[in-house]
Formats: sequence, C-alpha cells, structure tokens
Amino acid sequence: MSHLTIDLSMSLDGYVAGPDPSQEDPLGAGGERLHEWAFAAQSWQEKHGHEGGEPGPDADVIQERLDATGASIMGRKMYSGGSGGWDDDRNPRGWWGDNPPFGHPVFVLTHHAREPLEMEGGTTFTFVTDGIESALAHARAAADGKEVHIAGGAEVAQQYLRAGLVDTLQVHVAPVLLGSGARLLEGVSGPALEIDRVVASPTVTHLRYRVTS
Amino acid sequence: MSHLTIDLSMSLDGYVAGPDPSQEDPLGAGGERLHEWAFAAQSWQEKHGHEGGEPGPDADVIQERLDATGASIMGRKMYSGGSGGWDDDRNPRGWWGDNPPFGHPVFVLTHHAREPLEMEGGTTFTFVTDGIESALAHARAAADGKEVHIAGGAEVAQQYLRAGLVDTLQVHVAPVLLGSGARLLEGVSGPALEIDRVVASPTVTHLRYRVTS
Repeated sequence: MSHLTIDLSMSLDGYVAGPDPSQEDPLGAGGERLHEWAFAAQSWQEKHGHEGGEPGPDADVIQERLDATGASIMGRKMYSGGSGGWDDDRNPRGWWGDNPPFGHPVFVLTHHAREPLEMEGGTTFTFVTDGIESALAHARAAADGKEVHIAGGAEVAQQYLRAGLVDTLQVHVAPVLLGSGARLLEGVSGPALEIDRVVASPTVTHLRYRVTS
Repeated sequence: MSHLTIDLSMSLDGYVAGPDPSQEDPLGAGGERLHEWAFAAQSWQEKHGHEGGEPGPDADVIQERLDATGASIMGRKMYSGGSGGWDDDRNPRGWWGDNPPFGHPVFVLTHHAREPLEMEGGTTFTFVTDGIESALAHARAAADGKEVHIAGGAEVAQQYLRAGLVDTLQVHVAPVLLGSGARLLEGVSGPALEIDRVVASPTVTHLRYRVTS
C-alpha cells in the first residue's frame, strides 16, 4: 500500500505559514522565508521551468520527493485560498497556475462538490467531500505504487497524524523564527516517532521520521 | 564578553516541558521523554555521579556544554517550582539536591530577595531580583571568561531572546510529540538565525544556531 508522507518546510518555531494569509500573500507574513532554501535549489527551479539554482543536498532532497510522489492531498485553502461555495471562490482554478508544479493527481479536501479539473503537465485536481480517509483511498489508487504526499496545510497534516494514517514525517527546518502563523504540530500527541534520517546544509536541516504508531 | 547560550532539549513540536508541571513532576507530563537521550549518555551519567551510559556524539555534545559553561541563569520555577515568598516555598534549597549538577555559579531570577546559597560541588545559587540584564551581568562576571548558559525555563529563554541578548541557540530535538506543555519558542520573532552546526544521532538531533540580531 502506498506510503503516506508529510513533507513540509517549517520554521524552527514550528510554523508552516506566517500570520494573516491572504489571496495576495498565501504563505502569510514572512512565510516565503521558510522556502528560500527550496527556491535556491536547482531541482526546484527546474521543476518550475527555470534554469539556475544550486545543486547539492537540498536539491537532492527536493528531487527525491519529486521522484517518490505519485499523488498529493491538500486542503481547500492550499488549493485556492477560498472556503465557501465554488461560485464565490476568487481562484476556482487554484492559484498554482495553468501548469501546476505537481505533475500528478492532486486530491483537494473540500466541503463543496465539484467535477475534477485537468490542468497542463499531468496535474489533475480531484475534489473530495467525504473526508480524509476517502481522499487517502483515492490518492493511493491514483499513486500507482508511489508515495502519497500531504502537501498541506497544517490542519490537514494534523488530521492525518491524529488519525494514525501517516507513515513518514519530514520537516525541512528553516533557520527562521516567525513568532506566529500556522503551526504544523499543534495538538498532536499520539504518534510515536523514530529518527529515520538527517540531512544538513548551510541553509536548512531536513529531519525525517518514521511514524510508528 | 562571555557568550550567552540557550541550550535545551525540545520535542519536535517545540516543547521544553510537558503540561501540568508540579512539585512531584517538575518536567510536566511526558517531559522526561525529552531527556532520555541525555540520561543514556555517558557524560551525563558521569556528571551525576553514576557509572555507565553510552559514549558517542550525544555524550560529546553534553560534555562540550559542561566544559563551556562558567555560569547559568534559571527562572524561579526551574530552581524550586515555587513562585511566592521563600517562606512558602516547599523547596527553598531547590530541587537539585545537596550537590546540584551544575558545579558553577547559578543565578536565579526571582521577585523575592534572599541571600546566596552555597551548595556542595561548586554550585552557588544567587537570587537576582532586578531583572534579566542584571542577572546576565552578574553571570558574566562570575563565568570567568566561559559561557553563560540559560538553563530554562521557556519563559526565561524567551525574555533573553526578545531582548536581543542571546548569542547561540542550541536545541536538542527529541523525536517526541508532546501535544501540549511549555513551548520554547513562543512569540519570539525578532532574532535572525544562522545554522552553525548539526549533530545527528539515532535518538536526538542537535541543532545549533548563531543568533545574529
């Protein structure tokens, strides 16, 4: 059965997004600082159709994630920033552009039913209204043996952790203190962790854990 | 001028103590799980007068801290668990035993004045009532060129971070999710960090940062 992985950038004080996210500033105030290490990496630039960026351990960790993932799950806010019915959504096609940087099936958790949306480059957004286990079952079926990746946000990751469904938790700890925002690990005490791997670079530390219960 | 270092064990979700600390359970529920890596290390056992424990990177990191520290600063709760006047404190001599595991001058932040208390093994507790900068000045004078270490708790560490007085922040990230308790990095957004060193072991990850502003 496809492995379920949470793999997100996090500030040292535990945030995956800054405060006051908005349509104009989806990562919240200062949130882009959590991803500077990725923006600087060759594999990230290449995935987004650009040249340049640095090779090295950070680029390798990104490439590994890209290669391993067969399907992703994300929350509605991460898809479009919206929350109510689709007619009122300012980004009904998501804010990931016409060629989203996934290239695989993405399952969006929402309360509002909708037909799947096929984008360029292999990304199809499928809207799941019957909960996290259903989304996971759909994603596993679509992942073709590869891993299913929880792309975010924090609340979605917490729901999967609390339900005991996560196999691997990887956090890319950025040397940043945001002070407020959305914390990845909030009110999650059940799962037991074992250190699986640590990759260090001058700009970020990649901590990977096996989730054992 | 003596370097000021915060050096504490922290759960992956950011806690340095569990919920509901008490006289009987000073680390709070589950808090001892943050320190299992240290209890298992040879240098920790030796410092506490015991034999056994494992050599290796974790023991080396502890020994490095022991060698580097000339004076420590801690909050009143970390000293005794008390909060009011000393006559009402159940642990007026602290809960660190007659031979506390410091072996150097310790400055206790409190609102209640008191004469210094000399213990066995080189530990003297000095009670500072005029604030964190005064405690730091006293500790620097006593450290004899070595580092001053913020021993905890979380609120004391936050006060020094917010005041821009900290030079180095080291967290020993235990593979534990506590879910609640006292968070080390709460409401601290000012300081900029640079990754200084990462030491990995199978049971804990030691992340050290330079605090640059």
